[in-house]
Amino acid sequence: MSEESRHRVDIHYCTGCRWLLRSAWMAQELLTTFEDEINELTLHPGSGGIFEVWVDDARIWSRKEMGGFPEITRLKQLVRDQVSPERSLGHSDRKPSGNVP
Amino acid sequence: MSEESRHRVDIHYCTGCRWLLRSAWMAQELLTTFEDEINELTLHPGSGGIFEVWVDDARIWSRKEMGGFPEITRLKQLVRDQVSPERSLGHSDRKPSGNVP
Repeated sequence: MSEESRHRVDIHYCTGCRWLLRSAWMAQELLTTFEDEINELTLHPGSGGIFEVWVDDARIWSRKEMGGFPEITRLKQLVRDQVSPERSLGHSDRKPSGNVP
Repeated sequence: MSEESRHRVDIHYCTGCRWLLRSAWMAQELLTTFEDEINELTLHPGSGGIFEVWVDDARIWSRKEMGGFPEITRLKQLVRDQVSPERSLGHSDRKPSGNVP
């Protein structure tokens, strides 16, 4: 895969809420699963209860809007939809037919 | 500390060498110790045995030049020298008087 087709991921987390470990774990999961698709992954310390995940210019998760944190399988599906939509993530990858979480 | 005075850290690691876990651990150490000084920390998957750490535009570690990996206490000293030179890192922070590692 060429450098140009690879992607940037950003994770913004609240330091006051102690979400670094959670964020770093998710970072490792994403960098492992999408080793060929992710060009760089940035951790952004923040405040005020922020927890957001971005792929390139798309915000794929906002704790405040979604009311919590994503399951890691769900987060990987959302990243996959941005970076490699045709790819299956294996046995845990059942796309909901509607808005079922 | 104002946004403008905060710093960016970059860690480049070789995926083929399986250095993600090591890099993510160092990332968490740096983000914990320098919570107020680091604005963003980026993990860059790479190849060819690369392991480099940058603070802003300064390369503070290169595995190929230094012949290995830094001890975490040494790495924190090198980051500290860039982001907060006056700060003591506590009991583990004994500055070598010469080039002693």
